[in-house]
Amino acid sequence: MENEKRHESGLNVMEELFSPEVRTVMAEMKDISPDFYNMIVSFGFGELYAREAISLKHREYITLTTLITQGAFDQYRVHLQAALNIGLTKEEIIEIIIQCVGYVGFPKAVQAMGIAKEVFEKNQ
Amino acid sequence: MENEKRHESGLNVMEELFSPEVRTVMAEMKDISPDFYNMIVSFGFGELYAREAISLKHREYITLTTLITQGAFDQYRVHLQAALNIGLTKEEIIEIIIQCVGYVGFPKAVQAMGIAKEVFEKNQ
Amino acid sequence: MENEKRHESGLNVMEELFSPEVRTVMAEMKDISPDFYNMIVSFGFGELYAREAISLKHREYITLTTLITQGAFDQYRVHLQAALNIGLTKEEIIEIIIQCVGYVGFPKAVQAMGIAKEVFEKNQ
Amino acid sequence: MENEKRHESGLNVMEELFSPEVRTVMAEMKDISPDFYNMIVSFGFGELYAREAISLKHREYITLTTLITQGAFDQYRVHLQAALNIGLTKEEIIEIIIQCVGYVGFPKAVQAMGIAKEVFEKNQ
Amino acid sequence: MENEKRHESGLNVMEELFSPEVRTVMAEMKDISPDFYNMIVSFGFGELYAREAISLKHREYITLTTLITQGAFDQYRVHLQAALNIGLTKEEIIEIIIQCVGYVGFPKAVQAMGIAKEVFEKNQ
Amino acid sequence: MENEKRHESGLNVMEELFSPEVRTVMAEMKDISPDFYNMIVSFGFGELYAREAISLKHREYITLTTLITQGAFDQYRVHLQAALNIGLTKEEIIEIIIQCVGYVGFPKAVQAMGIAKEVFEKNQ
Repeated sequence: MENEKRHESGLNVMEELFSPEVRTVMAEMKDISPDFYNMIVSFGFGELYAREAISLKHREYITLTTLITQGAFDQYRVHLQAALNIGLTKEEIIEIIIQCVGYVGFPKAVQAMGIAKEVFEKNQ
Repeated sequence: MENEKRHESGLNVMEELFSPEVRTVMAEMKDISPDFYNMIVSFGFGELYAREAISLKHREYITLTTLITQGAFDQYRVHLQAALNIGLTKEEIIEIIIQCVGYVGFPKAVQAMGIAKEVFEKNQ
Repeated sequence: MENEKRHESGLNVMEELFSPEVRTVMAEMKDISPDFYNMIVSFGFGELYAREAISLKHREYITLTTLITQGAFDQYRVHLQAALNIGLTKEEIIEIIIQCVGYVGFPKAVQAMGIAKEVFEKNQ
Repeated sequence: MENEKRHESGLNVMEELFSPEVRTVMAEMKDISPDFYNMIVSFGFGELYAREAISLKHREYITLTTLITQGAFDQYRVHLQAALNIGLTKEEIIEIIIQCVGYVGFPKAVQAMGIAKEVFEKNQ
Repeated sequence: MENEKRHESGLNVMEELFSPEVRTVMAEMKDISPDFYNMIVSFGFGELYAREAISLKHREYITLTTLITQGAFDQYRVHLQAALNIGLTKEEIIEIIIQCVGYVGFPKAVQAMGIAKEVFEKNQ
Repeated sequence: MENEKRHESGLNVMEELFSPEVRTVMAEMKDISPDFYNMIVSFGFGELYAREAISLKHREYITLTTLITQGAFDQYRVHLQAALNIGLTKEEIIEIIIQCVGYVGFPKAVQAMGIAKEVFEKNQ
């Protein structure tokens, strides 16, 4: 029951953030490890993202920053779209990248900005 | 002139963020490299932090996240106090760390939370 | 109920790995964020470590390696003791560090070996 | 002579781990730097992997973990196949990735699991 | 005026380092954020690279090393060509990679050497 | 014999780089793992540093840069002194750190500059 609630609340957050296509790809993780997929949904989204202390928008500030910092650009691309979906403006996203310059240097910032350029063009 | 303006605007931001003691320590960088200190002030704070697209509070969301992600805990400690100085609540800071768990794992999150505990106790 | 079970199973694993002193320090996280402490116990130890697919000994192979690789030497020190507690031999631990040389380079391996030297001396 | 022995023992380990195709690609490093290729064979495999203190299987536990942690997914893909070649089960590999979630976060674990899915499908 | 000078001096360095094609791609950053492009030119190249304390060749020693260490292989590829453009020899570049083996391990060194092989072949 | 030569050539390089005190501390690694100490001497210094393609000074450019980039500040401190010992000027070292700002961001550069300040003061 409690676990069901975590799972359900995780799925709700994922619906807010990601398109049906993206969620379908994510669900393919079930083929190799249902437990792993369940951790993503129930812990990652159900226990972390679903907390109410800060807004989803603020969570995406954090998510985009950590992904740029660790150079995880595949996940960054997905969350860039998620950030747009829940209402971050392009200006805010550009500003997150610019603030990162001073903390992670140009190589990661340039790569982040290049991907933002591509994602923004698809969202025009 | 323009450079003076960047420098001045950097000093203003630093005044908002840091105590006089912290700024004195930072200024000691001038002893080894005045150019380096000038880059911190004029580029780091004057060109990045002073931009108006997002608030200082949002910049600290980004700063704390990138410092946790890269394990730069000395700078993190300084910016934790800066974040409190400009009005981030303890709840927000705790939540930034919790959101990071899913992205950087427990070791860095535990270290970040331990330092937060210490800094919060000094601010009671 | 289910959550209680995860929590309980996490506490059991922690008892196997860590001394009462270490667990007391860990529990102090409750002072700043009971939710965060609960995540460590219920997710970190209860959902991950408590899984039966591989042994605790093998989990410590993984834990020590990832901590050396990311340079998280405070947590590494704690898990080095945990590894000894559950039966990894000194030879195995030395060998984990040596295998890491080829993958992370000497600086992190040297630091890991120096800490191992200290921890081993306390365990004589 | 001694160097010949290191080299030979390195080649033996590589034969156990990698297919002839993979070894041919590796040997192309000789075109740009024979010294560098020799270091891989004689030091990497001949001095590190050939040590007898722990099994090749345990070495791959370490290798996969460090590669996931540092986000070196090209080499990870090669060693995933190597791990299967020397007898790690799919369950063990999945479990290595799951244990990593708590230490490196979801982005790298998700990427590692996605590659495992692809490699496992080729090995059916 | 002063800012114009920084900008101009940045463009001069970029002309020494990069082909017209590469500079055109870089300039496309203006489409998404003219401020960000200006930072690259005026701060990155104008304030850092244009300093006279060490030669451009020595700067590329540093740049290649940091890019290998952080695994930023897209930027590494661009700077490998830049290094050749300003007169680093293939032997020097190979030696930078070999020196890195001891500090970052084989995975990143192998990837760096593989890219060097490709870039050198284009420069024959 | 050949291995003896590698070992001897490694010890020679170490004598050029490090003070007797530092070498004594390094040799204490023999207490926990003679093999590991031998790898440092014979491979790290004997096979890598002893190569003649570039000068020791250029090797320290690379070493300092990679240590700053990976945040390995204990080893960085040791190599800062080594760099001074073999003739890098303070100006060159400051310039290495400044060049790094654009590639790794301010937090690591600030930490590197602070340590340089301390080491330079001891060398006056």
